[in-house]
This record gives sequence, structure tokens and C-alpha cells, in this order.
Amino acid sequence: MTVSLPFDDWLKRVQHETEGALASFLPAAETLPMRLHDAMRYAVLGGGKRVRPLLVFAAGALFDAPSAVLLRAAAAVEMIHAYSLVHDDMPCMDDDALRRGKATVHVAYDEATALLVGDALQSQAFLLLSEGDADPQTRIAMLSLLARASGSQGMCGGQAIDLASVGQALTQDQLEQMHHLKTGALLRAAVLLGAMAGKALTDEEIQALDRYARAIGLAFQVVDDVLDATADSATLGKTAGKDAADNKPTYVSLLGLESSRALAHQLRNDAHAALDAFAHRGAGAQRLREIADLIVERKA
Amino acid sequence: MTVSLPFDDWLKRVQHETEGALASFLPAAETLPMRLHDAMRYAVLGGGKRVRPLLVFAAGALFDAPSAVLLRAAAAVEMIHAYSLVHDDMPCMDDDALRRGKATVHVAYDEATALLVGDALQSQAFLLLSEGDADPQTRIAMLSLLARASGSQGMCGGQAIDLASVGQALTQDQLEQMHHLKTGALLRAAVLLGAMAGKALTDEEIQALDRYARAIGLAFQVVDDVLDATADSATLGKTAGKDAADNKPTYVSLLGLESSRALAHQLRNDAHAALDAFAHRGAGAQRLREIADLIVERKA
Repeated sequence: MTVSLPFDDWLKRVQHETEGALASFLPAAETLPMRLHDAMRYAVLGGGKRVRPLLVFAAGALFDAPSAVLLRAAAAVEMIHAYSLVHDDMPCMDDDALRRGKATVHVAYDEATALLVGDALQSQAFLLLSEGDADPQTRIAMLSLLARASGSQGMCGGQAIDLASVGQALTQDQLEQMHHLKTGALLRAAVLLGAMAGKALTDEEIQALDRYARAIGLAFQVVDDVLDATADSATLGKTAGKDAADNKPTYVSLLGLESSRALAHQLRNDAHAALDAFAHRGAGAQRLREIADLIVERKA
Repeated sequence: MTVSLPFDDWLKRVQHETEGALASFLPAAETLPMRLHDAMRYAVLGGGKRVRPLLVFAAGALFDAPSAVLLRAAAAVEMIHAYSLVHDDMPCMDDDALRRGKATVHVAYDEATALLVGDALQSQAFLLLSEGDADPQTRIAMLSLLARASGSQGMCGGQAIDLASVGQALTQDQLEQMHHLKTGALLRAAVLLGAMAGKALTDEEIQALDRYARAIGLAFQVVDDVLDATADSATLGKTAGKDAADNKPTYVSLLGLESSRALAHQLRNDAHAALDAFAHRGAGAQRLREIADLIVERKA
């Protein structure tokens, strides 16, 4: 994946290769039990911006990581993301019927199947990372990172805080901490997984990548809130205005639209600045820079 | 853990040490988000027969595995088991209010918390196995085994088949296949995790342990069905007669009580016979033999 490729072409290529990897790493729809495997494939394939795989490949480009290892890491982190969406959409959580322009899993299948799809996708993600070409020490480090990012002090913890915050007046710090876990932990994991697929990271490298990941993670959420308040469901492929209707705290409700947009641009600058730590690696960080731009400028 | 200890004392000791390990490997109830961590501890601690940890330690005894590695493996497999119970009890699955003599997690807390508790316990189990004293190659092998046993072609797959079988007339073979995945996969994983904590296993050793695990897994289920049909809820610590009321196929409905009891005893003999492969290891397999007896003779 050469840096000379225009960003849009690179993005489509990573999305395409990720789709192929996910299709091949998931059990075939004809494998027993068929309904479960069919639903797992429905939940994962054929949609999504694949932001986390893009981050895996962008960070991998910085450290010349082998693409077979990146594909596996990209598929694993995307399976964790997909499982979290399936569970998050269930009636006892956000109760949402539309996702990526399609019926959510519990609507297209049933609630029990949605529960099992999420559970099995999580196992599958860890199974994926336990296999493959990377040396055992690297695989263990990747597994440990992804498990920590997914669990009660990462993504699941963020969702628990999100649940508890409905109808609450959060401060900007509290809102940031919630998103830092709920979406930030997995975005950070994607960046670090890609980088560690290339080399064992120094503390300084981890800290710079952390600063980058924290900035784009927050920017991602601020832009999500702006889009939720301004775009329509058809454009988003999910129910627009849902957070306000659910009385959830958002950046737009806290700061207003204009200040939210300004914050997103500030965070993009922070993300770019964090990458200055890798200036000695030439154009290696270019893709990470371009993803920060994509996150802030996206329309859906 | 010396083999000279009477079985009952050994059993209590493993249960006690497993409880301590689980308590220390789970985040403290005061760690944020507190409600989630409190519910995770509620789901895992203070109950259960700890059959899987017993199998881990019994198989570990056969190959002189270090107890620190066994404790970690025992805690991991028990967290997977506990998560599956939490999700299985939810309204969209079995809708059960009683487990181990206590209110189920979605009753004691709420459905969204129960969903997140299960999700986070699964991550925590893999996090546990990714850390610790075992060499990276052993950790990877353990992780891979547990992920496969938990996923869509293991425990989750068995639950999907179970869901699809409600109200269906299954043959004995189909019923066996369902249980082979639903409970057998994790019991097998417990046996193999304990053994591989001691040494890298040969194909012959894996096959003998497989035969043992398959026999006790099936015996466990046959006895479960017998107890469900004959014991009361207070003795079981869960709702008795539930399977028949839910119109689920059971060994008792298929074979009748007496033939089910005879089958359980036959399976105990099969389990003992499988262990003959380890006769050259002296009394090493004694604990595995005793667990087969325990499973067939238990009253709850």
C-alpha cells in the first residue's frame, strides 16, 4: 500500500481488502448453525465506513507492517466494533431499528440471535488474533490490548457510563471521559494494533499515538453529534436525531453547533501535532493525518 | 495439590482457591464504572459448583502443571461460563429469574447491565489468558482453544441450536450434538487448558482427553435433565422443571428416567476407560476419575 496512492483510492482499497478479509475470516453461511452464521455475516459484511481498519492500515504504514498481519488485526477490531453495534441496537440498550441503512440484527432476525451474534463475534475476533503469521509475543500483545480496550474499563465500561448518563447533565469533562471509553478505546486499539504489527513500540511512540488517537476519537464523537443534529436518517444510514430524542447528553446540547464544529477542527489540529513525533519517518504518518481530516470533514 | 488429599477436601480447596482468584482477577467493585463492576462480581462470585475449574486442576494434576497457570486458566474458563449464564438467563433467551439461589443479573440489576456484564466478562477472560507466567506460545494456544470453544462453532453455536430446537422432536444424535456444543465445548476446553498448562500435548493425549471430556460432558447433561425432572428448585438453586415447561427436548423426555440414569452410568464408565491411556502416569488421572463420579452422583 504505497503512500503515493491518492487518499481516496487508498481508502477504497483498504475498505475492499477488509471486506474480503472479514468475509473469509467469518464462518461460511452454510456452516452449522446456519442461521447464526448467516446473521453474523449480515452484521459484519457489506457496510460501514471501516474507520478502525483504516486506522490499522494507516498506523501500519508508519512502521512498514506486513499486510497479512494488518488484515487480521483490522478484521478483529472490526468484529469487536460490529458486535458492539449489534448489542447496542438491542431493545434493552438503544432500541434502534436501522444501522448502515439496513434493519438491525434483532429486527432482521430476532433478539436471541442478535445476542448470540454479538457474543460469537467477540470470540471470533480473539480467535483471529490468536492465529496467523505474527510471532507469538506480538500476537499476545495484540490480544491483550484488544481485550483491555473491549472490556469493562474500555468500550463496555463506556457503554455502562453512557446508559447511566441518560437524562443527566454531564460536564464537558464527564462527556469526554464517557466517549474516551465508549468509542475512543477501540479507535486507540486500532491505531496501536496497526503500529505494533510493524514493531514493538517504545513508550514515546505509544504516547504520541495515544495523543493522536485521543484527538481523533473525540473529534469523531463531536462530528457524530453534529451530524446527528443536522443530517437526515437517509444520509446517515441510521436514525438521525436519536440522541436528542433519547435525552442523551451530546456536544451539540452542551456547546451548541458552532462551538462543536470549532472543537472538531481544534482536535484535528491536535491530531496532526501529535504526529510531529514521527517527522523523522518522512511521509510515513501521512495516512494517519489524512484520516484525521476525513473524520472531521465527513458528511455521514 | 497432592493426590493423597481426600477428594472432598481437594474439591473444597480448588473451589476456595478459584473463588479467590476470580475475586482478584475481576476489577474491584469500587473501580469505575462501579455499577458494571459490582454486577460482574455478583455474576461470578459466591456460587456455582466450579466444575470447569475442577476439571482444569484435575487435568493439570495429570501433567504436573504449575498452579499459578492453572488458577488463571480456571478463572478464565469460569468467566466465560458465568457470562454465558448471564446472557442465557435474559428475557430474550431463557427468561429465568433464579440462578445459583440468587436473582439473575437482569433481575438484580437491569437488562442492559446484564448484557454488558456478559460482554465484559468475555473480554476479561481473554485478557486474563493473555497475561501471566506461561510462555507466549502456551498462552496463545490456550487463548485459541478457549476462543474456539466459546464461539459460533462451540458454546454460542450450541445455544443457537438449542434455541432452534424448542418444540422440535430431536433424535438422540441431534440432542447429543446440541449439548456437545452448548456445554461440552467448554468442559472439553477446561480439561485441555489444564493439561496444556503442564505440557504441549500429543495428538494421542488430546484424543484420550477428548473422549473423557465428551463422556463427562454428556453425562453432565443427562444428569441435569434427570435432576430438572426430579429435584425441586430450592435444591437446584435454579428453576426446576423449566425445560419441560419450555417444551425443550431432554434426555428424560426422549429416553425416560430409568434409561437416562443408565446412560449416565454408562458414560461414567466411558470416561474412566478413556483415562486408561494415562495408566503409565500412575495415580495422575485419579482426580479426573473422581470428577466423573461426582458428575454422575451429584444431587444438585
